[in-house]
Amino acid sequence: MKLYNMPSSGNSYKVRLLLAFLEQNYERVDVEYLTDALDQAKASGALPFGKAPVLHLDDGRVLPESNAILNFLGQGTRFIPADPFVRAQMLSWMFWEQNQHEGVIAVRAALRNYPHRAAQATPERMADLLVSGNALLKIMDDHLARHDWLAGDAISLADICLYAYTHTAESRGGYDLAPFPALRGWLARIATLPGYIGLDD
Amino acid sequence: MKLYNMPSSGNSYKVRLLLAFLEQNYERVDVEYLTDALDQAKASGALPFGKAPVLHLDDGRVLPESNAILNFLGQGTRFIPADPFVRAQMLSWMFWEQNQHEGVIAVRAALRNYPHRAAQATPERMADLLVSGNALLKIMDDHLARHDWLAGDAISLADICLYAYTHTAESRGGYDLAPFPALRGWLARIATLPGYIGLDD
Repeated sequence: MKLYNMPSSGNSYKVRLLLAFLEQNYERVDVEYLTDALDQAKASGALPFGKAPVLHLDDGRVLPESNAILNFLGQGTRFIPADPFVRAQMLSWMFWEQNQHEGVIAVRAALRNYPHRAAQATPERMADLLVSGNALLKIMDDHLARHDWLAGDAISLADICLYAYTHTAESRGGYDLAPFPALRGWLARIATLPGYIGLDD
Repeated sequence: MKLYNMPSSGNSYKVRLLLAFLEQNYERVDVEYLTDALDQAKASGALPFGKAPVLHLDDGRVLPESNAILNFLGQGTRFIPADPFVRAQMLSWMFWEQNQHEGVIAVRAALRNYPHRAAQATPERMADLLVSGNALLKIMDDHLARHDWLAGDAISLADICLYAYTHTAESRGGYDLAPFPALRGWLARIATLPGYIGLDD
């Protein structure tokens, strides 16, 4: 199988991280922002919703959306809880990530780091994203102060999903994680698991 | 079980629509915007992420996020495809809905209809949301021109999920659906299914 992958994007990194934990081989096609490779992939129809990551199976079937790819690749593995309610809790965090977390934490990082987004990084917007992002990080920290993992008592797709943009919230997003000790402990737990790879690995 | 429900919200309507199709009984607690009921529900901790809908099971377990609730209630029913890849395609549309569609189509409707959002409805923003919303509706229309349903060859949670804000895109969002005949056919197919209820039913 082939993964259309945007190297700088947390959504693509999620999938690479799961594949690393699963020790699964795949072909990687890098399509970074503002490159010919991305334009060509879009023009060829390889990216159905116009975005990476997209998984292409060897039989030609194509699956977009990072969290759907995680669910597909994770089937039958320890990363999807067996209990129906815990599995729903896992999805709850994953939908929250796409609806709330990514639009704030990842967007603030993009505005700070991508030159073509710099014009949108007005002081007022950056300040708003700081306040709303801290509220989201607090929701995670409150949960992780009482539980080691986001859904159930073991790592699941929810942790991989939310790790992606949270672990660079400080370095790329400009958030201060000092007030969130449980969140920092959770980040460290994931980074020391066998098979772990970093964003740039 | 008990559903904390925001009557005017498509996210809450999704859940009510699935429960109607499944002919399942539940207690409904309405928590509309700018009402004491919403403030009280938030203050009591009934809404973990601060939003409705939230499902409370009789044994005390609590599940937020509309699309996670759909997946929990839909387990073992005809609304979740048996095939693993089709099930992943269903989730793909549902994550796309939360990440792309809702933040444009539902937000434009909210800016037009909620008095407390009117100040944010600048002409430039409304024009941007019209352009980006039409691009999203075209993605759906292109798919529905080739398939009756979003994932596989039968209705699934993806259709219920995306129906919620799409069926009011014209009346509440101010989008013109005339250029999207396949999309309009799909809306009509859903609205004539046995058990169907409308947003205000």
